[in-house]
Amino acid sequence: MPTFQENLERYADLLVRVGVNLQPGGKLQLNAPIDAADLARLIAKKAYEAGALVVDVRYSDPLLARATYEAASDAALDYFPAWGAEESLHKIEEGYAYLSLTGSDPDVLAGVDPTRIARSSKAYGLGMKRVADLMSASAVNWSVAGIATPGWARKVFPDLEVDEAVAKLWEAIFTVSRADVDDPVTAWREHTATLRRVVDHLNERRYDALHFTGTDTDLTVGLADNHIWAGGSEVAQTGIEAVPNIPTDEAFTAPHRDRVNGHVRATKPLSVRGTLVEDIRVRFENGRVVEATASRGQDTFVQLLDTDEGARHLGEIALVAASAPVARTGVLFYNTLFDENAASHIALGRAYSINVEGGLDAMAASGANDSLIHVDWMIGSADMNVDGIREDGTTEPVMRAGEWAF
Amino acid sequence: MPTFQENLERYADLLVRVGVNLQPGGKLQLNAPIDAADLARLIAKKAYEAGALVVDVRYSDPLLARATYEAASDAALDYFPAWGAEESLHKIEEGYAYLSLTGSDPDVLAGVDPTRIARSSKAYGLGMKRVADLMSASAVNWSVAGIATPGWARKVFPDLEVDEAVAKLWEAIFTVSRADVDDPVTAWREHTATLRRVVDHLNERRYDALHFTGTDTDLTVGLADNHIWAGGSEVAQTGIEAVPNIPTDEAFTAPHRDRVNGHVRATKPLSVRGTLVEDIRVRFENGRVVEATASRGQDTFVQLLDTDEGARHLGEIALVAASAPVARTGVLFYNTLFDENAASHIALGRAYSINVEGGLDAMAASGANDSLIHVDWMIGSADMNVDGIREDGTTEPVMRAGEWAF
Ligand SMILES: [Zn+2]
Ligand SMILES: [Zn+2]
Ligand SMILES: [Zn+2]
Ligand SMILES: [Zn+2]
Repeated sequence: MPTFQENLERYADLLVRVGVNLQPGGKLQLNAPIDAADLARLIAKKAYEAGALVVDVRYSDPLLARATYEAASDAALDYFPAWGAEESLHKIEEGYAYLSLTGSDPDVLAGVDPTRIARSSKAYGLGMKRVADLMSASAVNWSVAGIATPGWARKVFPDLEVDEAVAKLWEAIFTVSRADVDDPVTAWREHTATLRRVVDHLNERRYDALHFTGTDTDLTVGLADNHIWAGGSEVAQTGIEAVPNIPTDEAFTAPHRDRVNGHVRATKPLSVRGTLVEDIRVRFENGRVVEATASRGQDTFVQLLDTDEGARHLGEIALVAASAPVARTGVLFYNTLFDENAASHIALGRAYSINVEGGLDAMAASGANDSLIHVDWMIGSADMNVDGIREDGTTEPVMRAGEWAF
Repeated sequence: MPTFQENLERYADLLVRVGVNLQPGGKLQLNAPIDAADLARLIAKKAYEAGALVVDVRYSDPLLARATYEAASDAALDYFPAWGAEESLHKIEEGYAYLSLTGSDPDVLAGVDPTRIARSSKAYGLGMKRVADLMSASAVNWSVAGIATPGWARKVFPDLEVDEAVAKLWEAIFTVSRADVDDPVTAWREHTATLRRVVDHLNERRYDALHFTGTDTDLTVGLADNHIWAGGSEVAQTGIEAVPNIPTDEAFTAPHRDRVNGHVRATKPLSVRGTLVEDIRVRFENGRVVEATASRGQDTFVQLLDTDEGARHLGEIALVAASAPVARTGVLFYNTLFDENAASHIALGRAYSINVEGGLDAMAASGANDSLIHVDWMIGSADMNVDGIREDGTTEPVMRAGEWAF
């Protein structure tokens, strides 16, 4: 059995070679919480060994963000410098790959006034809108992966000593990321080929809508005109094929912002800005959330819906087999990157322009949604059925009892 | 006696209110090693409480830098992006204050090929030249202060357990930074007034040169034409008075690059890019180092001298009373910010444009030196005498046995 250090090295190598598929002479921006310094250094080493011209590491600090939300004036929360997006735009123009590590304590912002967080997020979202648009259009390769931190591990395994919890969380990350096998790069090649077959089938069938049925759920999700299913690896505008999310087990596309009807319940809790929102139930009418309840965190959830006009419409529908590795671990990660691969899900807010033919410019006309937010939440389960509805009204099974049915 | 946490809060407050003297609505960039996250958060809090509009924290990681020097290609070491200085130039234009925390393990780069470090430093120095020029001309307020880290504390107190060493190093930092008194802000007001009297006296006397005599030292340092002595607080081009170094006990000015003659020995070891250089002895002829030896680290020191043409000339001469607090602690900090306040010192390399009338544009004509480097090393001791030589050749005592003599 490989040691922890061996697994960590394989993982770093996987993120560089598969996650962003860094080329010789390539430029890399690595975003990492300060807790992830060990892994960040290892990734920098692997990237330079792969021939990187520059690895620019940007450390973030969730506790600093918390201190800011608590102490900053309203003017400070609203502040975003006029030149704040310039460096990112330079980097995108030069084809930098972006690798981001996520793994903060999901509760790090618990108790902070959510209106203050929303205020700051909105200022940042507005200031960085062009960058987010380019990223969602895959102007450059980007990838997001996990890092086990004490704060996160404590949340996932509250009954273990913290060292044990961190070790166990790393083990889970390595497993669902397929990093603990002999040859992770080959394993990923096979895995993305499998997802490619699903995506190709769905693109070939060109469904007008999907119909979800299951416990407390009867939802029809119209798909955007000229929608494109994506999943697994993706070819960025740089021409380089890479994997935006590690792990990833989803096939996803853009819903039509005005053609979603029915009701749906969340099958997992959702962590919104530090608040856990439980038992979400939502009703859609003509694409818009007209009713939303939760047994816990309802205020926070409604605040999220009120971020802007697009926040009450869907920007993503994603299908995940109930037998995917994240589901098999049985672990609730309290982190979307992982939990979204445990179940089929929908996202409120911004659609990805890669999910529409013609990209960014064609989104509005195709009915793809726009918003400052993009928040995924799980609706899938082992009792979920999904049918594809074709233009002529005929239906075909897509999933049965949570598994692919074609 | 105040607790550690109380001292840390006073220290954070001191750095914000005295170090950069942040104004309501002010903008702050805080540069901190990831080890300094606790203090960084506290400083952000104090800054926002003082009315900051934005606190932009940039975390650095010395071990990441080490990984880069070890694994990066030569092309990567030489790389600096064309737009790399833009953000700093925006910030300077907008009057951001810069607060930097220093406290890495002095040996963190030990064993790394110094030519690789020099290569990378040179690329950075060239790319950021305009920014460094503006900073040295006090275009905005900036301040540098210390942070006790385990790696640094182990070096300073090798015989103590690491926790004890860190506690003791903090104690020393608080003491020499005058942060552990009841009212640090008032203590600093008095301290900078004392330094102001020294600086005013030296500016009034307008010496042509200083003559240093002591053990193994007989050195005449010609001063730049129209030189200006500075020390303690400084009024930046923003009009705001602040303190560039905490602690600071020096009065300093610009030597004439071509009028330094004689020999001098270092009275303390010098840490250069992770290598400790000991027993430096140097001979100057017409301003240029023509002979340089060291009992340890001589290669590293000579490499430093060969960075560029200006690296063999002096850019600073600084006078410090042998009774200053850093000297009184008896601690060798292995960190210039602290050790330079234990003794009179000289710096190889770039002069500060604030030390010449007319500033940046007047430097070359005044004989002030330019270089990519600025490295201070200690020549003062309790047996050092310093005389001021006036234009007419008469001399006056400036220091006797290491203490002010006027
Ligand atoms: Zn998704
Ligand atoms: Zn999503
Ligand atoms: Zn100095
Ligand atoms: Zn200096």
